Amino acid sequence: MLDGIPLAGFNLNCHFSPQVLATALATLAESEVLDALESEVIKANLERFLLVLTVSLSVATLPQVFRWVRQIPYTLLLVIVGAALALVDVRLVNLSPELILTIFLPPLLFEAAWNLKWRDLRRDLFPITLFAVVGVIISVMGIGLGLAQWAGIPLSLALLIGASLSATDPVSVIALFRELGVGERIKTLMEGESLFNDGVAVVAFGLLVGIPLGIETFDLQVTVLRVFTVVGIGVGMGALVGFGISYLTQRFDLPLVEQSLTLIAAYGTYLVVEELGGSGVIGVVTTGLILGNFGSRIGMNPRTRLIVSEFWEFLAFFVNSIVFLLIGDQIQYSILGENLIPIGVAITAMVISRALSTYGLSSFCNVTLLSNRGASGAEPISWKAQTVLWWGGLRGSVSIALALSVPESLPGREAIIATVFGVVLFTLLVQGLTVKPLLVGLDLLGDQPLKQEYMEKLARRAALQRVLEHLMQMDGRIEVEVDFYQYQKALVEGGIRDLEEEISALQSKHPLLKDYAAEQLREELLSIEADTYAEYVRSGQLNRELASFLQEVLRQSLS
Amino acid sequence: MLDGIPLAGFNLNCHFSPQVLATALATLAESEVLDALESEVIKANLERFLLVLTVSLSVATLPQVFRWVRQIPYTLLLVIVGAALALVDVRLVNLSPELILTIFLPPLLFEAAWNLKWRDLRRDLFPITLFAVVGVIISVMGIGLGLAQWAGIPLSLALLIGASLSATDPVSVIALFRELGVGERIKTLMEGESLFNDGVAVVAFGLLVGIPLGIETFDLQVTVLRVFTVVGIGVGMGALVGFGISYLTQRFDLPLVEQSLTLIAAYGTYLVVEELGGSGVIGVVTTGLILGNFGSRIGMNPRTRLIVSEFWEFLAFFVNSIVFLLIGDQIQYSILGENLIPIGVAITAMVISRALSTYGLSSFCNVTLLSNRGASGAEPISWKAQTVLWWGGLRGSVSIALALSVPESLPGREAIIATVFGVVLFTLLVQGLTVKPLLVGLDLLGDQPLKQEYMEKLARRAALQRVLEHLMQMDGRIEVEVDFYQYQKALVEGGIRDLEEEISALQSKHPLLKDYAAEQLREELLSIEADTYAEYVRSGQLNRELASFLQEVLRQSLS
Repeated sequence: MLDGIPLAGFNLNCHFSPQVLATALATLAESEVLDALESEVIKANLERFLLVLTVSLSVATLPQVFRWVRQIPYTLLLVIVGAALALVDVRLVNLSPELILTIFLPPLLFEAAWNLKWRDLRRDLFPITLFAVVGVIISVMGIGLGLAQWAGIPLSLALLIGASLSATDPVSVIALFRELGVGERIKTLMEGESLFNDGVAVVAFGLLVGIPLGIETFDLQVTVLRVFTVVGIGVGMGALVGFGISYLTQRFDLPLVEQSLTLIAAYGTYLVVEELGGSGVIGVVTTGLILGNFGSRIGMNPRTRLIVSEFWEFLAFFVNSIVFLLIGDQIQYSILGENLIPIGVAITAMVISRALSTYGLSSFCNVTLLSNRGASGAEPISWKAQTVLWWGGLRGSVSIALALSVPESLPGREAIIATVFGVVLFTLLVQGLTVKPLLVGLDLLGDQPLKQEYMEKLARRAALQRVLEHLMQMDGRIEVEVDFYQYQKALVEGGIRDLEEEISALQSKHPLLKDYAAEQLREELLSIEADTYAEYVRSGQLNRELASFLQEVLRQSLS
Repeated sequence: MLDGIPLAGFNLNCHFSPQVLATALATLAESEVLDALESEVIKANLERFLLVLTVSLSVATLPQVFRWVRQIPYTLLLVIVGAALALVDVRLVNLSPELILTIFLPPLLFEAAWNLKWRDLRRDLFPITLFAVVGVIISVMGIGLGLAQWAGIPLSLALLIGASLSATDPVSVIALFRELGVGERIKTLMEGESLFNDGVAVVAFGLLVGIPLGIETFDLQVTVLRVFTVVGIGVGMGALVGFGISYLTQRFDLPLVEQSLTLIAAYGTYLVVEELGGSGVIGVVTTGLILGNFGSRIGMNPRTRLIVSEFWEFLAFFVNSIVFLLIGDQIQYSILGENLIPIGVAITAMVISRALSTYGLSSFCNVTLLSNRGASGAEPISWKAQTVLWWGGLRGSVSIALALSVPESLPGREAIIATVFGVVLFTLLVQGLTVKPLLVGLDLLGDQPLKQEYMEKLARRAALQRVLEHLMQMDGRIEVEVDFYQYQKALVEGGIRDLEEEISALQSKHPLLKDYAAEQLREELLSIEADTYAEYVRSGQLNRELASFLQEVLRQSLS
């Protein structure tokens, strides 16, 4: 990537041993030569970043061009295109664990947690905790023992692969489930599990990575203590940052500052928690949950909250577009080919152990629930939901980041990375592409199409009503023939009548749609209001700094 | 910054000559050691970035804590805090020219251009072009000759300083003028000049920088040709990207993709135009103008357009927060002290030559206008406006970036940087802090707060009326509970009544407000009209190929 860039005028082709160069680099760190290097790095990185983004966006427009592509979710399409680029050996960026963990993951975790409703999460806290903790242990053991038994991989390495593959990836899973429009319950269970088991898997990986190097041996007491410390620091610091920023944003009303603070919260929490030896993942999730459910309500006016949510939606789309393309683009087909046996064994072990944990733990939850009915408001988890949880547990960037962070000195590192990669691709491409048929087969997309149909009818009615209004205004305009006018009017009125009938038919068949429509109406009103303000602010007729005050007044008047 | 980071396990303290190290670095560029370095660089950069942002945001909240701080615009407050940090030798980041030009400048230019109304710009295109071209020449010559005459600096270096200081900084000026709430006319003139003279100054700097090194001599013909090439490539590529993306966004309706495309447009145009040897600054401004005035109307639905505008507002705030803090933080007090004489001379020469160019060129414009009345709709530029243009012409990050990009090999580089820095600080702190009193003294902010209050009330009424309208349309919709509907309606109607009273009270107290409102209404109607055209084009009811013709018609009806 720095090919051909003359550094301070020198560009000879000498060769040094890596050690000498490493030392040289360390010594140079603060010198001007590195500044020059850094400048070029900035430019080169920016260029590559724009390239990746452009490719991703082209992928996003594919469904507009080719109809059949619409069946494939955007994220998986990115993986496929990335894999195709890798096939012709076009490598866009080298994914490093730091890039994934420090740059890409925090905003994605934050956004997911920000949008997770605490109310829903609390209801299902018991199964989610069970999945995230016990589920990870089952998965590590299952995949590890399977690989040791049938692929002849030493147990210490096999467990490491197991740990890498135990975190269902929040990014992949959430992106997919949102696109498919799965019901709230399953989404909460899946998102909750994915957000929390990451932390657990990362901790497990950290514990296991020392063993094959001979640095550590396994000691249950030490392990449990360490898990509690790592999780505790994450939750503690996350809560501190979350409530701290909630408090701050309550003290003033500066939308842009509040928006910036959420960005600082996401990245800052991760860095600080990691620095303190805690789980950054758990830290960010905690902060995001607090800010999304508490801080944004307490400290932000509705408009700011809306803008911040939109900003994070964009950021998540943005990062997702990059991450999934790069996952596909990282594939080394030849190395994958050499490791087909461990990959196959790992896939089998993973699918079986996940079946064990999802069905087993769900049943346990349902039994507990039955003996404890009424205390929490939770329904039992249906076998259909269990099946989706089992098959929908995709692995993604977190697994890859963990595998890539296996130390270079560990023999068998290549094989670990290849195996994890192979399994991740299997989950994304095979499981990912079959989740939708599964949902349809289980009849779980149930009322989503219904709601869709309902909203479409409402939208059509609104559109026709606006047409009618426009026609009314036109009455008496000399340039319109009266006949034509009457004919059009009759047509539109007829259309509206038909729609009204269809809507009432739908409503009487599905009474819940009324609540749904009321909720939509409230959102609509708020958004009209917000849009009007925004229009005034944008056209310069209203001062930005003062607009927020008005929002406050308005918020009170409407709620 | 990489202190204490063990690179691949080696951290000896050997010393190499910079040349050897440079070569080593070049050789290493693609090796794994650099990957490790890059990982640490990612983390270190992220940490520093968060630190800078946190400090900036703390500054943003200062006015909430200390009342007297409210007199100081945010941007200048950042410079002051940065300078205070520099005084106790806390250095946050090393500002490199690449960082300023490649990372910070494109989004700021894009945002400014996106929000600049073509209608306003076109009306004042003549004075703006004059200021941007002739004004820069006057400034380069004035400052250069002054420094050569009275500070004993060789003419070739003095002209280089002049070129660095000839671009009024769009960032500083726009940020300041927006905060102060200056009238539209002055804002357009100032923003237009600032956006376009950057490109001219950068070109002038590029021409002049070769002379003291003996690489080039001055040749008028070559120079003029080169200026046209550089500007031409900028405008051409900018237009290509701008219209290209406008065309693309017309073909589909994917809000997040369209939002991402504007980001690619800003950075991509800059990089590509620079790569082709054109002026990246002019390229970005062209793209921004086209997308903001044309592409966003034609290709985006209103909601997307709003979200994109808000996104850019945030990004500009964000980058501004960083840039101004870092400008203050870069101050080297001791070196400034050594260069007090050239700094003083440069300030004097700058202020005088800007007086010459603003008053002179404005008068020229007014005379031309007088002899040509009616052809354009422009008013003459009042002497009050001229005075604000003169004193409000701040210098900022562009000047600093240019000074920093003087090649290391040029003797006197330190002095150039110090002088430019000193002058920039003078403009920001002395001129910047006195612009507001000047505006007040010239009675140019006069009724701004009153108008603000009035417009706020009108905006609130409009927002509530639109809510009411929506509610009315909903009346009779079967899916909404009658109670809920009645309650909302009563609330909104009460709010409107209160507002009506307040508005009439204001109007009877200040009769001029009626004219003001009438003027605003006219603009509103025009913008509805423009949006309607755009909607028709977007929905395919109007031929796209004719769109440019319609724009033409529309433009005439608007000016």
